[in-house]
Amino acid sequence: MSREGVTPQSEDFSAWYNELVVQAQLVDRGPVRGTMVIRPYGYRVWELLQADLDRRIKDAGHDNACFPMLIPESYFKREAEHVEGFSPELAVVTHAGGKDLEEPLVMRPTSETVIGEYMAKWIDSHRDLPLLLNQWANVVRWEMRPRMFLRTTEFLWQEGHTAHIDEGDAMRETMWALDTYASVARELAAIPVIAGEKTPGERFAGAVRTYTIEGMMRDGRALQAGTSHYLGTNFAKAFEIQYQDEAGKLTLAHTTSWGMSTRMIGGMIMTHGDDKGLVLPPRLAPYQVVIVPIGRKEQGEQAAAEARRLGAAIKSMGIRVHVDDNRPQLSPGFKFNEWEMRGVPVRIELGKRDIEGGVATVVRRLPTVEGQGKEQIPLDKVPEVLPGILAEFQSFLLARAEAFREEHTAAVDAWDAFTAQVGTGWARAFHCGSTACEDEIKAETAATPRVIPAEAPEETGVCVKCGQPSAYGKRVIFGKAY
Amino acid sequence: MSREGVTPQSEDFSAWYNELVVQAQLVDRGPVRGTMVIRPYGYRVWELLQADLDRRIKDAGHDNACFPMLIPESYFKREAEHVEGFSPELAVVTHAGGKDLEEPLVMRPTSETVIGEYMAKWIDSHRDLPLLLNQWANVVRWEMRPRMFLRTTEFLWQEGHTAHIDEGDAMRETMWALDTYASVARELAAIPVIAGEKTPGERFAGAVRTYTIEGMMRDGRALQAGTSHYLGTNFAKAFEIQYQDEAGKLTLAHTTSWGMSTRMIGGMIMTHGDDKGLVLPPRLAPYQVVIVPIGRKEQGEQAAAEARRLGAAIKSMGIRVHVDDNRPQLSPGFKFNEWEMRGVPVRIELGKRDIEGGVATVVRRLPTVEGQGKEQIPLDKVPEVLPGILAEFQSFLLARAEAFREEHTAAVDAWDAFTAQVGTGWARAFHCGSTACEDEIKAETAATPRVIPAEAPEETGVCVKCGQPSAYGKRVIFGKAY
Repeated sequence: MSREGVTPQSEDFSAWYNELVVQAQLVDRGPVRGTMVIRPYGYRVWELLQADLDRRIKDAGHDNACFPMLIPESYFKREAEHVEGFSPELAVVTHAGGKDLEEPLVMRPTSETVIGEYMAKWIDSHRDLPLLLNQWANVVRWEMRPRMFLRTTEFLWQEGHTAHIDEGDAMRETMWALDTYASVARELAAIPVIAGEKTPGERFAGAVRTYTIEGMMRDGRALQAGTSHYLGTNFAKAFEIQYQDEAGKLTLAHTTSWGMSTRMIGGMIMTHGDDKGLVLPPRLAPYQVVIVPIGRKEQGEQAAAEARRLGAAIKSMGIRVHVDDNRPQLSPGFKFNEWEMRGVPVRIELGKRDIEGGVATVVRRLPTVEGQGKEQIPLDKVPEVLPGILAEFQSFLLARAEAFREEHTAAVDAWDAFTAQVGTGWARAFHCGSTACEDEIKAETAATPRVIPAEAPEETGVCVKCGQPSAYGKRVIFGKAY
Repeated sequence: MSREGVTPQSEDFSAWYNELVVQAQLVDRGPVRGTMVIRPYGYRVWELLQADLDRRIKDAGHDNACFPMLIPESYFKREAEHVEGFSPELAVVTHAGGKDLEEPLVMRPTSETVIGEYMAKWIDSHRDLPLLLNQWANVVRWEMRPRMFLRTTEFLWQEGHTAHIDEGDAMRETMWALDTYASVARELAAIPVIAGEKTPGERFAGAVRTYTIEGMMRDGRALQAGTSHYLGTNFAKAFEIQYQDEAGKLTLAHTTSWGMSTRMIGGMIMTHGDDKGLVLPPRLAPYQVVIVPIGRKEQGEQAAAEARRLGAAIKSMGIRVHVDDNRPQLSPGFKFNEWEMRGVPVRIELGKRDIEGGVATVVRRLPTVEGQGKEQIPLDKVPEVLPGILAEFQSFLLARAEAFREEHTAAVDAWDAFTAQVGTGWARAFHCGSTACEDEIKAETAATPRVIPAEAPEETGVCVKCGQPSAYGKRVIFGKAY
């Protein structure tokens, strides 16, 4: 692997990404177009993300469940916008158990319809609300332009589905999910996302309001990394999700849904990676530290023994460490390149001179402070200094990405400035709120409204495209998107 | 729920099971025939099982990965026995993204074929072996006689897939998986399974040797609760899984596969449940302890406050406890019945007299010792005695199930005795090893050879059916199976 490295980002960002995800052993292309095999190194990232998010979901009172993958086609047709939005992407089972099926079955692209059917069954009284469900599942959407992690025919995600007594309670839930996604993106993946609402043209099929977190990738494009939807009573009407209120009156529930997927891994890669390969935030790194013993024969044996001792001491600090002591056929230089390619935050080199001097050479994947890329640390101090180095590296990645985003974001009011700005990053601009106008902007620049930032200051102005008064009371972020 | 209870086991064991899984809120019937919705209470059991088994799998050096659900039909055709075994059960996607597909795609019934394809890609040298993979996945098998947890069209499982340098190493792996499954069944689900090899007629499609763990349900039938397969070089040949040995020679790898599924939950239910409902082993119980405060109005409030205090103290011991303090509309008697139906190992009642006396009434779901069904324990002692009570309850269930199995198992040598024995339990009998003879036994009695027990004493005799010499050097366990 990775003897030849990857295409530089500056030369071809797409090629860099497509080569890197394979060379770093995160994924392999699946046997069916648009599918992926998530290899152990990539799957471990997902497990780390999943464990953290699952804890947050449970702590907030949600229960995990498991609904079937196959959904009768008729369920999809009950919510008109929903079926229109998803129809082109469906994969359909027509034949099973040696026979043609009477009704085709759809592989779930999302589960509002099947879960709606059961919510209706399980909810009788206001006492049954809120109903707070989540599932970790695979879903299938037939993608025209597939790309590993970002848009694959099958992907992994969690989907939260909740039912509430009224709009107020459902909106609190919708915003809880949005805040949770923003925290996970920032704290784990070190992606400084912008959270806020989507414009009507970018809403989820069947939602009343859609909220999103958007991150800026190192090519200046936006990635939607999680969404939370207030569905109003749309699905409640379609599936008869009703409850008896305290006065005994049958009332429609208000529902929400929210999802975060393996796409987040793609976002992490494109937020931090460089021409040498991945750069993994320590909180999502399968190996936070790798130790490479150096030397041949007896000297190599001595270094390997020392590396294993050090590895055990580091592991006892609760750090994920890997000792690369089992590949004598490879040179240290090859190993260094490989662990850089695979994005391990901290590499520890242990050679003859290090051991004689009672030190280890500690190398960060990126220099966090001027001149601090590589330093020698007394062997017995290494385990105790590593938690600080890893925490600092995690913060450094978030701050670096935030600075990058700010450098590549500008408030613009003129159309020329707008088109120039979305060529390299994000434009903060006023918009009239018309979907037709959004479509014109997209046709001319390939940019779309990514998010109406929740935290942007209140401002008014005129639409950067059509000159009509702005609709949102603040600037909207526009950019080209994945 | 459960106001009316379930059909008694003695009256109709199937009805008892089918009613119980729904009434205890473990599952609901899915929208498509043979599918199930696993509700939060059932899914939590699965999560507890999964967490433990996943830790064992990782500790033994396996990595989790994720392979695609959709497999090209052509992959299935490469291993002749495999395709023959699984063809009748396949669900097939013929249409996706608005178009008919050129090649139909099969929803995985198991993943040997797709994983074989990637093993071949990832393995070059003997240094790449063993390759130890596992995935947690949903699989689809179109079942003719579906039953919740036991045989559903879609189910959840883990499937281990490994490649090895030779038969010896692959067989060590096969036996490791079998031992691990037996430990999980015994230690968590409290099912005293018998582990051993399957006869040739009962082998997995494509395996050289299949090993199984078999548990006896309370109707005397057997449930296969996990299997481990030595696949020899069958899949290695079909998918060209080869490595260069130390001398540089291309050599076929030896592979294994092994799986445990949501079926285990069905086994747990049918091993311990009774006419009042579920009986959950504490290690798999979503709630190990439930506290029911008793009383109305002010007195009820006082009891609820005391229950919450006690709940917090119990939770701090690492025990999963639920305080039932939020349903004033239901009577204590209704709640007691409901928690019995749902199988909670220990119920704590807190009424006025208990609180005045400074005690709690502690009720085990089953009396573990004569007369010890219900006892009063000083309030401040409750948290410290519960771990012992739960551990004892766990052991009690295993011992009770083991005694039941022994009572319903007998060594038989005559055909009449055999047919009588398999009417109510298991027969330990000699068999000639012929698959045709197995088929005759099945046709006449509905019983099949479940397992050649690894730990049975060496014995020889003549086949209970045809009188030919016995083939296995020991008695085989025969029984009717789920």
